[in-house]
Amino acid sequence: MWNCEKSAARIENDLNALQAFTSTPGAGCTRLPFTKETRTAADYLKQAMATAGLAVTEDAAGNVIGVRAGRDRSLPAIVCGSHYDSVVHGGNYDGIAGVVCAIELARVLEEEHVTLAADYVAIAFMDEEGCRFGTGYFGSRAVLGEMDAAECRTFSDLDGITVYDAMKSYGLDPERIADAAWPAGRLGRYFEIHIEQGRVLETCGADLGIVSGIVGIRRARVTIEGRADHAGATPMHLRRDAVDMAAQVIVEAGRLARQEKESGAVATIGCIEADPGAVNVIAGRAAFSIDVRSTDAAAIERILAGLRRKLDDVTHDCGASWTAERTLAVAPVRMSEDLQARLSASAASYQYATHVLPSGAGHDALPISSHAETAMLFVPSRNGRSHAPEEYTPPPAFAKAVHVLFDVLRTLPAN
Amino acid sequence: MWNCEKSAARIENDLNALQAFTSTPGAGCTRLPFTKETRTAADYLKQAMATAGLAVTEDAAGNVIGVRAGRDRSLPAIVCGSHYDSVVHGGNYDGIAGVVCAIELARVLEEEHVTLAADYVAIAFMDEEGCRFGTGYFGSRAVLGEMDAAECRTFSDLDGITVYDAMKSYGLDPERIADAAWPAGRLGRYFEIHIEQGRVLETCGADLGIVSGIVGIRRARVTIEGRADHAGATPMHLRRDAVDMAAQVIVEAGRLARQEKESGAVATIGCIEADPGAVNVIAGRAAFSIDVRSTDAAAIERILAGLRRKLDDVTHDCGASWTAERTLAVAPVRMSEDLQARLSASAASYQYATHVLPSGAGHDALPISSHAETAMLFVPSRNGRSHAPEEYTPPPAFAKAVHVLFDVLRTLPAN
Repeated sequence: MWNCEKSAARIENDLNALQAFTSTPGAGCTRLPFTKETRTAADYLKQAMATAGLAVTEDAAGNVIGVRAGRDRSLPAIVCGSHYDSVVHGGNYDGIAGVVCAIELARVLEEEHVTLAADYVAIAFMDEEGCRFGTGYFGSRAVLGEMDAAECRTFSDLDGITVYDAMKSYGLDPERIADAAWPAGRLGRYFEIHIEQGRVLETCGADLGIVSGIVGIRRARVTIEGRADHAGATPMHLRRDAVDMAAQVIVEAGRLARQEKESGAVATIGCIEADPGAVNVIAGRAAFSIDVRSTDAAAIERILAGLRRKLDDVTHDCGASWTAERTLAVAPVRMSEDLQARLSASAASYQYATHVLPSGAGHDALPISSHAETAMLFVPSRNGRSHAPEEYTPPPAFAKAVHVLFDVLRTLPAN
Repeated sequence: MWNCEKSAARIENDLNALQAFTSTPGAGCTRLPFTKETRTAADYLKQAMATAGLAVTEDAAGNVIGVRAGRDRSLPAIVCGSHYDSVVHGGNYDGIAGVVCAIELARVLEEEHVTLAADYVAIAFMDEEGCRFGTGYFGSRAVLGEMDAAECRTFSDLDGITVYDAMKSYGLDPERIADAAWPAGRLGRYFEIHIEQGRVLETCGADLGIVSGIVGIRRARVTIEGRADHAGATPMHLRRDAVDMAAQVIVEAGRLARQEKESGAVATIGCIEADPGAVNVIAGRAAFSIDVRSTDAAAIERILAGLRRKLDDVTHDCGASWTAERTLAVAPVRMSEDLQARLSASAASYQYATHVLPSGAGHDALPISSHAETAMLFVPSRNGRSHAPEEYTPPPAFAKAVHVLFDVLRTLPAN
């Protein structure tokens, strides 16, 4: 049997080495797409993939791909990976750890002399976070054939540099982005190992999380128009206090989300501003963000309908008004039931404690799941921290995920 | 009988002329203390007072004082006035209208050949608003003997200029500020005509407001420390959502204030900020202002106690914490019952509709009421607007207030 400690050590070694590829040394990982940092990280990954015995290429989107030939190369490939870009001042695990695990899996396959029926592909996707251009899932959507040169011209970073121009200066030809698309029948099952980014696994003491699905997200920016009045000279019954109305809606958002407990729904108001924002002036306007997520699209709709009702109620009572601008709408997706069952069974055979949970964040697995049987394995995040330099998961936790995935791959039907 | 239309026209003329003394022409009245604008306004007021037959002085605090000698000059003076500074981008009525009314009253006394038993003093106080130095009631407190050179050195404006230095460059000697204090026995009854700054009088269709008292104010800045977590990856039951907790407290503030309806209590949360303030991050910290006012000190205490309980409850439930910093504490004061009754009777004799209400804002009448029998007359504010260029009260409304006050002064016992 393969050695879990050895895997943990190699994973740790890779993760440590990859920490160097940040534009903010000492202040977390900042590895934005099409920069010196992604270039040097890609070079490292190519070297690691080659050493693991993989045939390495970089595609037209900047994805780094390593292939271990299967017994029947015409079969749809088994793909394992994640992304290698990061957010600004992010951590050293989000994305890149899943890539490192995919490479470790290749090493183990090599060491254990396992040749799968189909090709095994380790993949490092470019620009999942979308931080630089306000987008996301760039590399995985390119593989899926969903990206073209026109879209590359559409989005630009804070310096006005488009994806198109950034690709060119990176040494890629955006006019050939379609070349990154995989031919029909090439993409088989997709597996992604990722840090949880929350504290559910840590709280319940699980070694691994089996992801049931990726939540749908609806975001809106709500503005309540009340009336700015003197805080001392305006009795309660004559007020149109926008902050008071906003507070009632925010409390209701929490109540509605808790009521949809079965769907794991969450509602978050992360931003709120009062205008004019003076201690002694009743707020004439309050604006706040709403972010509602659930694996159950109907639960999201119920929460949004409840919020609209509440907004109507609180504004109608005093003659105020509200508007909402939808800023994001993503449908929830399910992970493969079959693959979830296989991951659970494998983990159980090693007596790893697992917990089934939805992913509250998007991942490359989100767009891919519309095209292929997809599964995700979560490893616990210490203190639930993510998108911050404090992000941490001990290397043995990743080794367990590789352990479980290795067994699943070996026993997958070829189909 | 004196002519109400004539008074209204003169008041309008003065108010129009005084609009020129702003540092933000076209954008409301900005007449900060010890500036060119207060100097030119003071010059105008002195001229108007002199024309009204008053003996004019400017005291060591920059207050402009006009005296009409009474029959017995040893009696405590009857004082009528308000302040002549303004907030930034304020209106053309807050403060200055009360000064103009006091001067108009002197004109009417002169025209009607009325010599009161005691001296009649029209006064224009310097720096009631406290906008420039973060203070307030400067001129009235100087008259009351509550101001000294040390305090003038304590506060400074945004440019670092102290009250002390501002006074010197204005031509006043801060070392002689104590000279502004009136001798014992000089201050008799104090009357202040002021715009309401709210919409109560307009709503109930009253011509004039008889002020029952000036509310006490308690202000605090509350900070709730929760925990910043991923908005997608953190289920509702594992959250310490600072915005959600703040919202519950804000809703409770409204409920508690409405419950104290008899005391006219109000609670206002005018400022709120979420940190880090991102759409997809649960707020780890929420900070907000609380401003609670009532004429009943016990009602204020009950509201604050209720808010502390609510803060304890919501933070205790999830392991969060809160702190509050008191930023203002002013005790409520009562206006003279006798003077209220006299004002009401006078108004009734002219069939002016009156409404008794507390003043929710502080005025020079607040510090003065601890030293002298004090009364305030409110005139309606159009749409309740104040501290804004939209501030407006039609001149005839002020003439009615002068009308009522004229009768009260004539019939006051000398005592």
